[in-house]
Amino acid sequence: IHSHTKIHTLPLLCIFGTGDLGRSLGQRLLQTGYRVVYGSRRPQSCGPLPPGAQVRTGSPPFSSYLYEFKQRNYVFMHMNVSEQVFVDLSNNQKKDMYPDTNAEYLQRLVPGALVVKGLNTLSAWVLLNGPLAGKQVFLCGDSAEAKQAVRELATRLGLSVLDRGSLSAAREVEDFPLQLFPEWRLPLCIATGLTAFFFFYLLIRDIIYAYVEQDKDISFRIMVSLANKVFPIVSLIMLSLCYLPGVMAAILQLYRGTKYSRFPDWLDRWMLCRKQLGLLALALAFLHVLYTFIIPIRYAVRHKLISTVMKDNKSTPFYFDNTEAWATDSFFVLGIMGFFLYFLLGLTSLPSVGGSLSWREFTFVQSKLGHLTLIVCTAHGYIYGWNKFLKPSTYKWWTPPGYMLCLVVPSVVLVLKLLMVLPCVDRSLGRIRQGWERTGPEEGRASLRATTL
Amino acid sequence: IHSHTKIHTLPLLCIFGTGDLGRSLGQRLLQTGYRVVYGSRRPQSCGPLPPGAQVRTGSPPFSSYLYEFKQRNYVFMHMNVSEQVFVDLSNNQKKDMYPDTNAEYLQRLVPGALVVKGLNTLSAWVLLNGPLAGKQVFLCGDSAEAKQAVRELATRLGLSVLDRGSLSAAREVEDFPLQLFPEWRLPLCIATGLTAFFFFYLLIRDIIYAYVEQDKDISFRIMVSLANKVFPIVSLIMLSLCYLPGVMAAILQLYRGTKYSRFPDWLDRWMLCRKQLGLLALALAFLHVLYTFIIPIRYAVRHKLISTVMKDNKSTPFYFDNTEAWATDSFFVLGIMGFFLYFLLGLTSLPSVGGSLSWREFTFVQSKLGHLTLIVCTAHGYIYGWNKFLKPSTYKWWTPPGYMLCLVVPSVVLVLKLLMVLPCVDRSLGRIRQGWERTGPEEGRASLRATTL
Amino acid sequence: IHSHTKIHTLPLLCIFGTGDLGRSLGQRLLQTGYRVVYGSRRPQSCGPLPPGAQVRTGSPPFSSYLYEFKQRNYVFMHMNVSEQVFVDLSNNQKKDMYPDTNAEYLQRLVPGALVVKGLNTLSAWVLLNGPLAGKQVFLCGDSAEAKQAVRELATRLGLSVLDRGSLSAAREVEDFPLQLFPEWRLPLCIATGLTAFFFFYLLIRDIIYAYVEQDKDISFRIMVSLANKVFPIVSLIMLSLCYLPGVMAAILQLYRGTKYSRFPDWLDRWMLCRKQLGLLALALAFLHVLYTFIIPIRYAVRHKLISTVMKDNKSTPFYFDNTEAWATDSFFVLGIMGFFLYFLLGLTSLPSVGGSLSWREFTFVQSKLGHLTLIVCTAHGYIYGWNKFLKPSTYKWWTPPGYMLCLVVPSVVLVLKLLMVLPCVDRSLGRIRQGWERTGPEEGRASLRATTL
Repeated sequence: IHSHTKIHTLPLLCIFGTGDLGRSLGQRLLQTGYRVVYGSRRPQSCGPLPPGAQVRTGSPPFSSYLYEFKQRNYVFMHMNVSEQVFVDLSNNQKKDMYPDTNAEYLQRLVPGALVVKGLNTLSAWVLLNGPLAGKQVFLCGDSAEAKQAVRELATRLGLSVLDRGSLSAAREVEDFPLQLFPEWRLPLCIATGLTAFFFFYLLIRDIIYAYVEQDKDISFRIMVSLANKVFPIVSLIMLSLCYLPGVMAAILQLYRGTKYSRFPDWLDRWMLCRKQLGLLALALAFLHVLYTFIIPIRYAVRHKLISTVMKDNKSTPFYFDNTEAWATDSFFVLGIMGFFLYFLLGLTSLPSVGGSLSWREFTFVQSKLGHLTLIVCTAHGYIYGWNKFLKPSTYKWWTPPGYMLCLVVPSVVLVLKLLMVLPCVDRSLGRIRQGWERTGPEEGRASLRATTL
Repeated sequence: IHSHTKIHTLPLLCIFGTGDLGRSLGQRLLQTGYRVVYGSRRPQSCGPLPPGAQVRTGSPPFSSYLYEFKQRNYVFMHMNVSEQVFVDLSNNQKKDMYPDTNAEYLQRLVPGALVVKGLNTLSAWVLLNGPLAGKQVFLCGDSAEAKQAVRELATRLGLSVLDRGSLSAAREVEDFPLQLFPEWRLPLCIATGLTAFFFFYLLIRDIIYAYVEQDKDISFRIMVSLANKVFPIVSLIMLSLCYLPGVMAAILQLYRGTKYSRFPDWLDRWMLCRKQLGLLALALAFLHVLYTFIIPIRYAVRHKLISTVMKDNKSTPFYFDNTEAWATDSFFVLGIMGFFLYFLLGLTSLPSVGGSLSWREFTFVQSKLGHLTLIVCTAHGYIYGWNKFLKPSTYKWWTPPGYMLCLVVPSVVLVLKLLMVLPCVDRSLGRIRQGWERTGPEEGRASLRATTL
Repeated sequence: IHSHTKIHTLPLLCIFGTGDLGRSLGQRLLQTGYRVVYGSRRPQSCGPLPPGAQVRTGSPPFSSYLYEFKQRNYVFMHMNVSEQVFVDLSNNQKKDMYPDTNAEYLQRLVPGALVVKGLNTLSAWVLLNGPLAGKQVFLCGDSAEAKQAVRELATRLGLSVLDRGSLSAAREVEDFPLQLFPEWRLPLCIATGLTAFFFFYLLIRDIIYAYVEQDKDISFRIMVSLANKVFPIVSLIMLSLCYLPGVMAAILQLYRGTKYSRFPDWLDRWMLCRKQLGLLALALAFLHVLYTFIIPIRYAVRHKLISTVMKDNKSTPFYFDNTEAWATDSFFVLGIMGFFLYFLLGLTSLPSVGGSLSWREFTFVQSKLGHLTLIVCTAHGYIYGWNKFLKPSTYKWWTPPGYMLCLVVPSVVLVLKLLMVLPCVDRSLGRIRQGWERTGPEEGRASLRATTL
């Protein structure tokens, strides 16, 4: 009897809009047990509606403003007819298409309505095919009761609902499906900037230097050799930029003697894009690996090998240099191991893999494994130049080579991190992170200053 | 008080079947707060039941047809005893094992029962270990109330329920866990067909031609060289086949002047398997990459290199060809970049990655990035043959080489796509996709015909 | 009207703890529609609380033991004030930090409380940012009603709840977020042990043998050549160890004539870590692939190539060996195909990919594709040594080379598996797995013994 009554209390929903989204939404709601009615101006012209749904056109309260709504080509839902709850699911084609949001426009057209903006991140495709459970949707609206009604509908669909506040948040909710990788912008800018800088720096040092000083045209090297220097350099710098803000935050906490003061905004923003920085670094490392494997089948490399043989043939025999063999092999092994660790880090940032790790496992991978990766990759860089640091020919036009520049930031990060894990520093940092505060922040800072001087 | 009463209204469930599935189901239901009783013919012989469950054997209503049910070795659940709701969770070992479905068989055995077929996609393993939340299950049945009762149970387990209609859909629901990559069949057939065709085509052109015309046995090339031609060719064609139906659909919409008429069936089916086409293309590209990296350590390649050196030694010196260096390096770089973009596309088709993208991000990746990949890979193909198009030696036995054949479809797709993004075409397509219709379809078509003629 | 009343029955929650976790929890609960009050000793010193939450400090029932709770720096929640339900969400910094669990400590401090331990796997970060839906949380407690109340709260948050029993399971629930890859420990030990064994075995056979018998220092080979032998050897053995327990279980079931007796503990544990064994094998195979691709750009390899050319120059011409070309190319192709299949296996063990497969698809991939991978990789190993088995120079110091040792286990697994799929064996195994039992286990065993003799 109980379940019997429940079926009949599932409200009748009226969907305005018979496009893809409206039809998919109706079908899913029907499958979930709701009764669905479509409101349409021209019931005969709309596509095939889901079986079980009815179409209504001239019902008094809607017909008057039905046309206005359709101007914006959007979809909304009328719930709990007596309470006038309207859900606006619509999205615009692009940002700032209209001065007001669709939800506010709906509110203005039906002043008595309790408008809720939300569920607009669901596409027609997902509504038809995908499992909805596990998807997060946003809601906002001025009426708590209307929001609760919509939340119940969403829960019934298996959705996870997040309340974003009053209807004034509608702009934000409406722009959400239109955003294009907002959290990737800063990391992409950094990567592009670093790549451009090192590209021109190495272009001058390698190609133009050879052209000017030795009158050799080696411009073909831009495609592979030069790119294969730029990618690992930028990758290593970006990897170290992932771990720099963590060290800086720790220093700040030590200096302030508390974890309760907020970090400066730029540090906060930096910390929030560490994942993207790391993934871009991984992408560049991946390109570096592909470029490296392609080396032996390049025309220029084969040409050089053959020329060497033909020249050497006439001169002294080619002796085997044991140190050189050890150094190059160590260089390659560190590179392989670094890439392998990098790859593991990247794997755990897949949502499904990261989500299956316990908190301690995630911390272990991102911190311990991450710093190990940084150490291995930095060592890979140091070995590359092990016997070139002191040669004068390395410093063409008095500039240091690229790999030296790229070792600066990782070395600084590793040295700072090393200081942080010293027992005495680690202990006070641990206490601060557990909520301990240096009493009297002013004296605390003063005493810290005294000790550091 | 409210929650107190609620506990006691959770219905008593009777599970028939004490195998792996029955036991796991019972344990999960007990953990969710239900009371569970097992119905078994031989309570002493069944394995360890979950703690808290009882076993009943001779209760009057069941004992009579208990044995019949067990004939099919399956599991079902008796809910809401007064209302006779039976849930059939069983699956058969293979398709069409019995003439009727298990659900219909159960219905026949207990005529008064309200049979619901469903939840049968849950394996014993998942019920015991995995999180159920986010999983989609299917239901079907003739009684709306019975389905509502089962839907509530499923919701309580965190499942997302999809109603597939009346009990006549039981066959479909029952076959679901038995299906073996149905959406991969067509793409796999296409891939196999193309691979076989190009394999024999190149076998004739390369190996048999050399044997017949030059009397050389180069059959060892089948293993690596030939495969490394077939894989990229098929991969590129399949990638372009991902983007061809989209262009065709756009042309059809332009021609019809509306988005509301359905596409022909073959186009619909084609569009639904684009993801699988793309993933197979990626797999073949991955094989192509592995085959390419292995080239320099092959015996035949090293032999050729050494022979070249020994021959060249006696002849003229080996001059460096700057154009050749640029061309081969560009070829490799386009290949690497193409594979890298391919890989990004593949990443976003992982359910967990794709699911975390906003609608616009997903569209951007699949459309913009996808077409960029196609452009880069097609350019990779064109550069491969840049200086061979006009040589007569390229056309052995008057046949064009494989890479020329494989460039046809991608070039057509890219040209058509280019036409689609022309401002005038793009504008009318955009209007159609927003729901605009050319008034009077017949005149519309006529006028379009007039303009295209 | 119904939804109106419902809002007001959402209980008032009191969160003790205003750290990161407490704040994030409160914010999420507020967004889900609950009213939240914080209990704090020093309301003025705690960080910014979520908007809409209140702070209470001296309310009579709490103030007395508030300080005691805070000793352990943890977070709990007071629900349904009249019923005294307390949820302990806290985690310790490390295992066995205190003799009793936090939940028991809370119970002791508030003897009348209905303590529920749980939800403690949610981090502050996930509560603030991530979708909660689809996440599994654990609960335990002595009061079924209290657990039901917490379960409803968790369901409202979209969580999937698993009841772990009475409060005595609190230790287990509390240790869950602290565990560090427990299921990876055994596979990692096996991988480390095998790697160490084969490293020293090959070190003696290759490096030390050359030093002692031929007085050559080839120690530089440790870095790449030796590692590139050890990795594939260990990888192949571990891959076969994934499939050995399945065969052993089948033999045991055949021998016992039933599937209802439990496997020995070691076999159970082995079967549970097959996924991890396989992923470690894949990781080693990945390293093997990277090491192989790096070969041609190694100094030692280029040196050898150049030396060969210069030596050959003076001696007889270098004839092309067709068999050698076929053998090495087949070797490479089998390696590539094996790695490709390996990779597919690894992909399906990603939670999001595996979760989207039907039961039959998952079985197909893990069993059919898995055994195919094992066959291909074993063939890769056999071809490596195809012309070395009978040469006496292969058996330095009377020891077999590494690749022979590594072929033992895979060959045994494949032969046993071959026996299992023989029609007669397969049929009786199928019957047993469907629940059939040989009547009279004692006679059964006796008769089996008779037939096997």
